[in-house]
Amino acid sequence: MQRPFLHPSTDDLRLESVLYALADPVRLEIVRRLATGDCPLNCSTAAPAHLAKSTQSHHFQILREAGLIRSERRGTEVVNTVRCAEIEAKFPGVVSAILKAAKPLPCPDA
Amino acid sequence: MQRPFLHPSTDDLRLESVLYALADPVRLEIVRRLATGDCPLNCSTAAPAHLAKSTQSHHFQILREAGLIRSERRGTEVVNTVRCAEIEAKFPGVVSAILKAAKPLPCPDA
Repeated sequence: MQRPFLHPSTDDLRLESVLYALADPVRLEIVRRLATGDCPLNCSTAAPAHLAKSTQSHHFQILREAGLIRSERRGTEVVNTVRCAEIEAKFPGVVSAILKAAKPLPCPDA
Repeated sequence: MQRPFLHPSTDDLRLESVLYALADPVRLEIVRRLATGDCPLNCSTAAPAHLAKSTQSHHFQILREAGLIRSERRGTEVVNTVRCAEIEAKFPGVVSAILKAAKPLPCPDA
């Protein structure tokens, strides 16, 4: 059986970890795609397609540990959502301003 | 003669560099102190006092290269200001929301 994903509680969210997680262009793009989509996305859809699976997983792990996303297994697939409301309540305006300022990443798969 | 400080132009500011620079608690505290003060601060006043000079310089360099601060020599001292207006114009709301969410760093020199 696969291990469940661990998500920090809202109390444990740290501003520095959120900023560090979003300081990488690929991770910023993943969060941007998740936030602009209306539904949970699996990892392959949310991440730039040219990335190796292991690199994708690493980025999703950092985003999860920073409290930016929530990951859930649905059958064989993992779907992800941004923890918008919780992040907004904890750090008002921070992630929404960052996402507004972020430009879509030019990707080979775009 | 000492080398002049290099500051990126507004066009060259990158969101990821700004976030990376602020993802460190000491650098976030330096920018918070500079932004809440009304006047330029020298490095020793803006940085937590327990830091070694070389560590201070490294943090100021990262902040300068990200375009967050402007440093100027005045005699033997270096004074720093936050590039508030330029950063706000380029990435509206980002740094102001981050600074509002940032808590003062508990420091031995506080």
